[in-house]
Amino acid sequence: MADYFGWDIGGVHLKAARLSAASGRASLATRILGFEIWRDPAALTSRLRSLRDARSGPHAVTMTAELSDVFPTRAEGVRTILGACAEVLPGPPRVLNLRGRLVTLDEALERPLEAAAANWMASAKLVALARREALLIDIGSTTTDIVPVRDGEPRPAGRTDTERLMAGELVYTGVLRTPPASLADTVPLAGGWCRVCPEHFTVMGDVYRVLGAITEEEYTVPTPDGRGRSRNESMARLARLVGADPATIGPTAVETMAHFLQERQVDQVARAIVQVRALWPGDPPSEAIVAGAGSFLADCAARRAGLTPIRLDALFPRLGGDDWSRAAPSAALAVLLAAETGDYRFTS
Amino acid sequence: MADYFGWDIGGVHLKAARLSAASGRASLATRILGFEIWRDPAALTSRLRSLRDARSGPHAVTMTAELSDVFPTRAEGVRTILGACAEVLPGPPRVLNLRGRLVTLDEALERPLEAAAANWMASAKLVALARREALLIDIGSTTTDIVPVRDGEPRPAGRTDTERLMAGELVYTGVLRTPPASLADTVPLAGGWCRVCPEHFTVMGDVYRVLGAITEEEYTVPTPDGRGRSRNESMARLARLVGADPATIGPTAVETMAHFLQERQVDQVARAIVQVRALWPGDPPSEAIVAGAGSFLADCAARRAGLTPIRLDALFPRLGGDDWSRAAPSAALAVLLAAETGDYRFTS
Repeated sequence: MADYFGWDIGGVHLKAARLSAASGRASLATRILGFEIWRDPAALTSRLRSLRDARSGPHAVTMTAELSDVFPTRAEGVRTILGACAEVLPGPPRVLNLRGRLVTLDEALERPLEAAAANWMASAKLVALARREALLIDIGSTTTDIVPVRDGEPRPAGRTDTERLMAGELVYTGVLRTPPASLADTVPLAGGWCRVCPEHFTVMGDVYRVLGAITEEEYTVPTPDGRGRSRNESMARLARLVGADPATIGPTAVETMAHFLQERQVDQVARAIVQVRALWPGDPPSEAIVAGAGSFLADCAARRAGLTPIRLDALFPRLGGDDWSRAAPSAALAVLLAAETGDYRFTS
Repeated sequence: MADYFGWDIGGVHLKAARLSAASGRASLATRILGFEIWRDPAALTSRLRSLRDARSGPHAVTMTAELSDVFPTRAEGVRTILGACAEVLPGPPRVLNLRGRLVTLDEALERPLEAAAANWMASAKLVALARREALLIDIGSTTTDIVPVRDGEPRPAGRTDTERLMAGELVYTGVLRTPPASLADTVPLAGGWCRVCPEHFTVMGDVYRVLGAITEEEYTVPTPDGRGRSRNESMARLARLVGADPATIGPTAVETMAHFLQERQVDQVARAIVQVRALWPGDPPSEAIVAGAGSFLADCAARRAGLTPIRLDALFPRLGGDDWSRAAPSAALAVLLAAETGDYRFTS
């Protein structure tokens, strides 16, 4: 029996995965902890400790939290985050870089920008274990990663966040934290169009609560007004997008806004998928590998872009455990560590 | 010598004006206090007290702060705000309603939604003292009001925020707090287009600091990252809009983004002006009366929409004092109270 640990240090969630492998069988256990790093960056160490497993084994880390403006520069963010990891995780932990290599902690500290925002690379490396040609679409609470895998390797057009935003490989949109005003200037209302208020009144989590696409438990980020996650409370927040209460415009109007905003988000992701596919040399794949808390949205966007969605975990029938594709980068790191030993193969 | 006091209780700023009138002369003194009501609504009373003048005279109040989501409904917000005003201001104060009438405090408490978000009506009534036909454009830190004055009266197509957003008479955009991601999905970068990150990394105040359109002192709202208001600090915040630092993309790229975002905001306001003018029966006016902390932007938008801008204070040559058009609704209430007595005329 051997254990392998993967970590994904995001700005809003910490994700930890443990792969436990025994003869011919392997199982993944993931944990996701809501943690807005900008509220208390010094608490990272204790939060990591609370997620740490009692069992021993190698650890690997990836991150996106360094983008938070609590860090004056991204390089300083990477160093701070790796410092916390080194303090809590034994080993010391390995670190994934933007080339897809698991480097030593010292190497990562020397070239921090090569370890910044690399978590998409972990999931893409995982996909590449199972498919020579594939398009990965991972939609989380805040962002969407669209990564081409060709010839059995991740082949992104961009590596840094900025390059990836330009290429369509990173779309800064997700199913919980995204402000609806970033998706539409106007929403349909009363047979016309109403301008929106770009305040922090509501987020896409409210849209998906109103539509019944997520449960209260799946709304894993703080609500903008600190109130609850019931459908009625989400309706009230969403109505403020047009400066109204549900009582004044009626629940049907709020539901119509929610449908429209979902449609805008599907469109936004589908356009990026088409942009990424447009660079494919030769025939692009007809399948999309979908993952993340927003895999339901990835599903819709993939279909709209003409691809057949397949869930990431369906590629790995030998990997049991929980719904680990929601925490894909951390799960991927655990699998990559295990695969590195050469003792394990997870694909048929 | 008589004094008249006007108050505008916004969600981000409190504005107070005192009109002091003596034989044939009058002067306005205004004060603006940054106060984000959602951070500490109970502090409203003490903040109002700190702005209160020792001199006596009638007071009138208008507000927009009830839209803040710290209040479960807008009606409850109006009642809370009026409660604080009644406690601090003698009289009791009169309250402006959406019909442009200064009603008693009791009347306002009975029909709170008629007093909600009425501050634009104060400024429009003021314009109507000087012009029978005019288009008022008041751009503040957060919002823009575009109000038609016809036959010597404000003649808006909408009264509530929602109606006004639909009519183009309210555009929820301003020169300080507006998130750039509400103005553009993509910005020009490196000869291409880069998707933006709709996080609370930067605001339009940074754009106008980078462009030199406002001073550090005119950046009267908190910065998103709590850092300073120097041009370099604004550059750093703006670069995060595309997930970058100024060091990685260079200062010229950040300046280009700022120019582009200003252009998008001018366009947004100009389109609303054209929408409002399109409803004018007969010939719309060729002048725009501009006011607010963003009057420089109102100027550009008015010209783009084919109108000649004139500053609000230029309509009232007999009214001396400070740069009161930055706090137009509160100044307007003070003038309206004085004009009501019949003893004063402020136009030639």
